[in-house]
Amino acid sequence: MLKNIFFKNKGPFNIQKIFSKHNFKKNIKINDIKTLDQASQGDLTFFDQLNYKSFAIKTKASACITSEKLSSVLPNSCLPIIVPNVLYALAQATIQFYPNSDIDYPDLSLKNPNKSKYPGVKFGKNVFVGQNVKIGRNTFVGSNTIIEHDVKIGNNCVIGSQVFIKNTFVGESVVIQNGCKIGLKGFGFIPLKKKNIKFPHIGKVIIKDNVEIASCCTVDRGSIDNTIIGENTYLDNQVHVAHNVKMGKNCMIAGQVGFAGSCTLGDNVSIGGQAGISGHLKIGNNVKIGGGSGVIKNIEDNSTVMGYPAVPFKQFIKNWRENWKKIL
Amino acid sequence: MLKNIFFKNKGPFNIQKIFSKHNFKKNIKINDIKTLDQASQGDLTFFDQLNYKSFAIKTKASACITSEKLSSVLPNSCLPIIVPNVLYALAQATIQFYPNSDIDYPDLSLKNPNKSKYPGVKFGKNVFVGQNVKIGRNTFVGSNTIIEHDVKIGNNCVIGSQVFIKNTFVGESVVIQNGCKIGLKGFGFIPLKKKNIKFPHIGKVIIKDNVEIASCCTVDRGSIDNTIIGENTYLDNQVHVAHNVKMGKNCMIAGQVGFAGSCTLGDNVSIGGQAGISGHLKIGNNVKIGGGSGVIKNIEDNSTVMGYPAVPFKQFIKNWRENWKKIL
Amino acid sequence: MLKNIFFKNKGPFNIQKIFSKHNFKKNIKINDIKTLDQASQGDLTFFDQLNYKSFAIKTKASACITSEKLSSVLPNSCLPIIVPNVLYALAQATIQFYPNSDIDYPDLSLKNPNKSKYPGVKFGKNVFVGQNVKIGRNTFVGSNTIIEHDVKIGNNCVIGSQVFIKNTFVGESVVIQNGCKIGLKGFGFIPLKKKNIKFPHIGKVIIKDNVEIASCCTVDRGSIDNTIIGENTYLDNQVHVAHNVKMGKNCMIAGQVGFAGSCTLGDNVSIGGQAGISGHLKIGNNVKIGGGSGVIKNIEDNSTVMGYPAVPFKQFIKNWRENWKKIL
Repeated sequence: MLKNIFFKNKGPFNIQKIFSKHNFKKNIKINDIKTLDQASQGDLTFFDQLNYKSFAIKTKASACITSEKLSSVLPNSCLPIIVPNVLYALAQATIQFYPNSDIDYPDLSLKNPNKSKYPGVKFGKNVFVGQNVKIGRNTFVGSNTIIEHDVKIGNNCVIGSQVFIKNTFVGESVVIQNGCKIGLKGFGFIPLKKKNIKFPHIGKVIIKDNVEIASCCTVDRGSIDNTIIGENTYLDNQVHVAHNVKMGKNCMIAGQVGFAGSCTLGDNVSIGGQAGISGHLKIGNNVKIGGGSGVIKNIEDNSTVMGYPAVPFKQFIKNWRENWKKIL
Repeated sequence: MLKNIFFKNKGPFNIQKIFSKHNFKKNIKINDIKTLDQASQGDLTFFDQLNYKSFAIKTKASACITSEKLSSVLPNSCLPIIVPNVLYALAQATIQFYPNSDIDYPDLSLKNPNKSKYPGVKFGKNVFVGQNVKIGRNTFVGSNTIIEHDVKIGNNCVIGSQVFIKNTFVGESVVIQNGCKIGLKGFGFIPLKKKNIKFPHIGKVIIKDNVEIASCCTVDRGSIDNTIIGENTYLDNQVHVAHNVKMGKNCMIAGQVGFAGSCTLGDNVSIGGQAGISGHLKIGNNVKIGGGSGVIKNIEDNSTVMGYPAVPFKQFIKNWRENWKKIL
Repeated sequence: MLKNIFFKNKGPFNIQKIFSKHNFKKNIKINDIKTLDQASQGDLTFFDQLNYKSFAIKTKASACITSEKLSSVLPNSCLPIIVPNVLYALAQATIQFYPNSDIDYPDLSLKNPNKSKYPGVKFGKNVFVGQNVKIGRNTFVGSNTIIEHDVKIGNNCVIGSQVFIKNTFVGESVVIQNGCKIGLKGFGFIPLKKKNIKFPHIGKVIIKDNVEIASCCTVDRGSIDNTIIGENTYLDNQVHVAHNVKMGKNCMIAGQVGFAGSCTLGDNVSIGGQAGISGHLKIGNNVKIGGGSGVIKNIEDNSTVMGYPAVPFKQFIKNWRENWKKIL
């Protein structure tokens, strides 16, 4: 697996060191922390929701933070680490590997780009780039834009003005309009009175080829996983994409739509303005979601839904008529 | 008609050149592309929705991209150009006249303002202006703000910090608060697998006198038409105004309201927070729309509506009571 | 009481000078303008809504702008000033004390920070700070961020990039992410045809310790009162906080939530994404509000509500089932 280029991994650590209050019969060396499906031998993972069961069954991780109840699902090759609060234990473990991943400290390595390093790139005024930023040929970067260390941007992109990008890979022919904030940490924390524990965010944002993101959108990076916007998907202004969201290809997302964490969209999904999608949902291929809808259940392929909460479109219309004919 | 000062018109073109797959009996010289109501003799226009019939009947355009069905509405003076997809053909034609109008390339002519050119203007730090920008006396421009080429701003305005303005005419005594992005292209494209066709946006934003736009609003410019915010209309924070929207005078738009493309508002309209207005709707004068409403139909003058979808306020309350008395 | 450090008070004024059309039997010297509960002897206050009655009864203000009807509530020590439009008269009075508080003129005293004045502060590039800005040790300030005059920021904070802060006190260990606009004036005005009267905003924003505000939020300062975000409260991206809002401790506010003016939240309130809270409401302690809800009534402690308009969660579910079983 690729190593994390945005955060320096302080590991490997022995599992006994990571979970000092547990007693392990044999000590395992842990290299990194990954999701159930992305983990390899030597990795630590976590399993806290039954809807990830299909990934848990075949995880290749060497150890998994989980609950007593869920632990039986794991394969024998994966050592369960039973804890009362999976996300809390995961946060504690992750911060040992990646100490500064829980707060977005501004990149102090920023400089105006040395133009000889960026042949074929057209920069506006007062652009700042961090160390090891790569930008492809024939890409534009607008004025007052900030691109932090190690970000990669492909050829033929247009990055607007007053944009901020960190912890992100941008493909080819991508447009990111003015004021977007891409790659910041998501809204994840363990609530504690007086002082919450901020959840580390070691993932990145992956923006595929031909994507367009209109003005003032926020796209948070993944926590352990990545946030992905699929090829040729278009976002209108002021869309909010939370951590770990995955969108397929050719989606159309209208203005002010909000995605809660970890929801996934298939291909060719269209969503009307101001709709909201709850966390951890799976929206199928070719789904249409009406404007203003509140989606709180998984949606099957080829469905059209509308309403708050969203229901199949025909039911929405029928219910609407029933209600109003009584009073009109 | 005024010529487009934000984009250079590569025309005129013979109609046979614009639509090379069609066979025209006589060749017409096309000067520009305009909406049905704004087109003059020598202009090309388009007609794709029956609710613009009243404009189509009396258009002065010399030719019109339209469908077989709609073409009968056009006057004899206007040559119908029958195509399977009006917007696709319109995009193809427009891009010939205005080649770089489909992507917002950052203005590379930006410079710190030469203060002798802007007597009576008070600039913050690190302001950038493009070529031929005009700013009136006693106007303030806050720090890190960008004003691209040919924008005109009147007297006594306050343009905040970290603002971006392009393709826009701003009247007198206008306030635009921090972080607003004004005049970028709207969310318009012909969806195609692999690579959508971005719709050209050759229109502008017109902001009339005494308007106030609070922080972090996005106001997109028109596609073929303009986006207009009427005199003394106030927008609260994080409002999204899509392409071709037209607002009348003295409107009050609360926070996080969203307008889909091409909707029009009369005068004295007030809209509560987070309401959404669907595309191509006509909202009359003195209309009140409750917070959180989703408006999907035209609204007559002097109406008060609420709900998702929005209905007359009395019906909303009646339905509400009927529903809840059963269960309370 | 503390004096206003963000605006210079032009007073004291004799009450006869402030309200020149009124005839006062004895002349009172007015030092400042405060809310009912914060006013001391020598202050002018205002009372325009019955739900502030408990504050009106015991106000220590020397005079109060109010209506005939409400005036009887005031204590004898407080001179009622009866006017047809309380907010209009208040605006007129306030602007005499604080002449430039109705428009956010950009701070023209901004400079790059003199690093010797800010020991232990880590600045990104192109940061601008105004006069008398105080920033604590071990605080980061990201690139292209603007902090206007007299703002105070505590120790161990992380202020992101492209942030704007004015008229604000920030506590310790606060995180404010990229693109936030904090402390601008709220959406308040007296609607008048041709030219609204902008309501002066002489309040500030107070952000308590351990608060986190994610990207692209807008937090408006108070009008006469302050806007307050309580200790350890977290806001996700694109949240809109209007003037005079007061949030308690340990609240969790998800993405794109909107708060209308003057609403108050208790402690431990959690609000799902895209919910909206109407103005002047009181949300109790430990309240949970579902995503997408529209709250239009006060909510008692320990309640869970959902819906548009929001109702107790059990009722929401019951109504939902009743409705849909008819048609499914």
